[in-house]
Amino acid sequence: MQYHLDGKLVPEEEATVSVRDRGFAYGDGAFETLRAYGGTILAWDAHADRLERTVATLGFAEAIPPREDLHKRVRETLAANDLADAYVKLSITRGVQPGKLTPAERVDPTIVVQVSPLPRGGTDGENVWDEAAVLRTVATRPVPDESIPSDAKTHNYLDGILARLELRRTGDVQADEALMRDPDGYVVEGATSNLFFVDDGVLKTPSTELPLLPGVTRSIVLQLAGEEGLPVEEGRYAVEEVHRADEAFVTNTTWELRPVETLDGVEIGGGPMTALLSRLYDQRVEQLCY
Amino acid sequence: MQYHLDGKLVPEEEATVSVRDRGFAYGDGAFETLRAYGGTILAWDAHADRLERTVATLGFAEAIPPREDLHKRVRETLAANDLADAYVKLSITRGVQPGKLTPAERVDPTIVVQVSPLPRGGTDGENVWDEAAVLRTVATRPVPDESIPSDAKTHNYLDGILARLELRRTGDVQADEALMRDPDGYVVEGATSNLFFVDDGVLKTPSTELPLLPGVTRSIVLQLAGEEGLPVEEGRYAVEEVHRADEAFVTNTTWELRPVETLDGVEIGGGPMTALLSRLYDQRVEQLCY
Repeated sequence: MQYHLDGKLVPEEEATVSVRDRGFAYGDGAFETLRAYGGTILAWDAHADRLERTVATLGFAEAIPPREDLHKRVRETLAANDLADAYVKLSITRGVQPGKLTPAERVDPTIVVQVSPLPRGGTDGENVWDEAAVLRTVATRPVPDESIPSDAKTHNYLDGILARLELRRTGDVQADEALMRDPDGYVVEGATSNLFFVDDGVLKTPSTELPLLPGVTRSIVLQLAGEEGLPVEEGRYAVEEVHRADEAFVTNTTWELRPVETLDGVEIGGGPMTALLSRLYDQRVEQLCY
Repeated sequence: MQYHLDGKLVPEEEATVSVRDRGFAYGDGAFETLRAYGGTILAWDAHADRLERTVATLGFAEAIPPREDLHKRVRETLAANDLADAYVKLSITRGVQPGKLTPAERVDPTIVVQVSPLPRGGTDGENVWDEAAVLRTVATRPVPDESIPSDAKTHNYLDGILARLELRRTGDVQADEALMRDPDGYVVEGATSNLFFVDDGVLKTPSTELPLLPGVTRSIVLQLAGEEGLPVEEGRYAVEEVHRADEAFVTNTTWELRPVETLDGVEIGGGPMTALLSRLYDQRVEQLCY
């Protein structure tokens, strides 16, 4: 693969950063996971909005290039690898600075685009996952807003990593996504996904008042449900409510909509609403990208 | 400078890691800040203990070399740069792995030693800081234990960075350390330091029951105070108690003991106990290292 590093295409093995880069030293950076369908990034503006918000939270909004420049780097990276359907990761860190923890005002950001092939999406596509998701509730809590605002997608991702490691520690070799709750026990999000479930015909998902990363796929699903006239509720839910759900699925940019086979060993599965929203999602991808 | 990277000495500008290194992607690594005095690392075993604890928390304890090997890399880096008195940063990340967020069982860690010169320490030394510390209480809360255990010193350092950025946002150009509290308002720690204060002859410092990083310098100060028979208390303190203190100082490996000039504009300053403990610290450094 060719990656894009600070404005240049370089072979993957030459895509390196200084050990003094603040992305490496402190996880002091923002990123977005994007998906290209037929060479087009789905929901680029929503991702660019969030990236700009994250960088503003980190206090270096004025140092990053306009989004069109970033979009161009992404397209150049796809083209250089002759990829139309791909996973794309776009990272912007505060770069190398003199001094230690306190950020310097002058920022020369490190900007990286990484890509890897994915199958075709849309109505003729196939899922990137082989199986429905197996979820387990974990003890690790998502980092609260008052420590790091949860709507910022940063290179500080250890809460999600520790959550995933708990799956291994519990000996649950099947589980591949960890479901985190807030300190009051309300369901928040998966380590890399948002959760939806269906209860008596209503599509429910944890509210953004909880410390969750508001996923772009989550937004699209809510929009599609609204357009379809499905009853939707964003709220605070105990994990037992999800155990009793008629259907459940998790979302992220790569997985799109992925049914939940079990949560804590309780069978849930997809169902008609999951299937409908998946079809609508595929159609939206088809319309916008292919 | 020459840095140590994965077992080899390399010029600083060649000390780079892949953008796929999990230290860069997720801050998925451990580090220690060390100080060399006359070529000897002060309290190496205490730092190695904490590093091993952090790596155990991150689930790759079995993948790192024995501490004697790490110590040797540090000494080689100092020697290669002809440095006796120095700042040393030792980082170990989970390295490059296939897949995304979920850590793979097989770990080939990235091990980095960075150094830079510092003045001589001990009884004939000079302080690395020019002025006493100016502290300001900030709104950012330290990441709680249930998200990331606070006794782990990891490359996820955004809470401290956001705390330092608050100083700039409040327009307090004097302040150079941010004091964080827990959600109940109790004083926890500075962004890169532990806090001590003196109240009616008693040396007080926030308890490790709070979500703080237990600094090695903090431990040495508590030990010196114990040996000297000074009354010591570890507890939960409101910021107003610190405002009313007779003396206050902050500690970390680089600063050693640094008096607090003001907190939130309230004058505190050092005093006899701060001076005594600083002298005892210098003597300990002299004994152990020179």
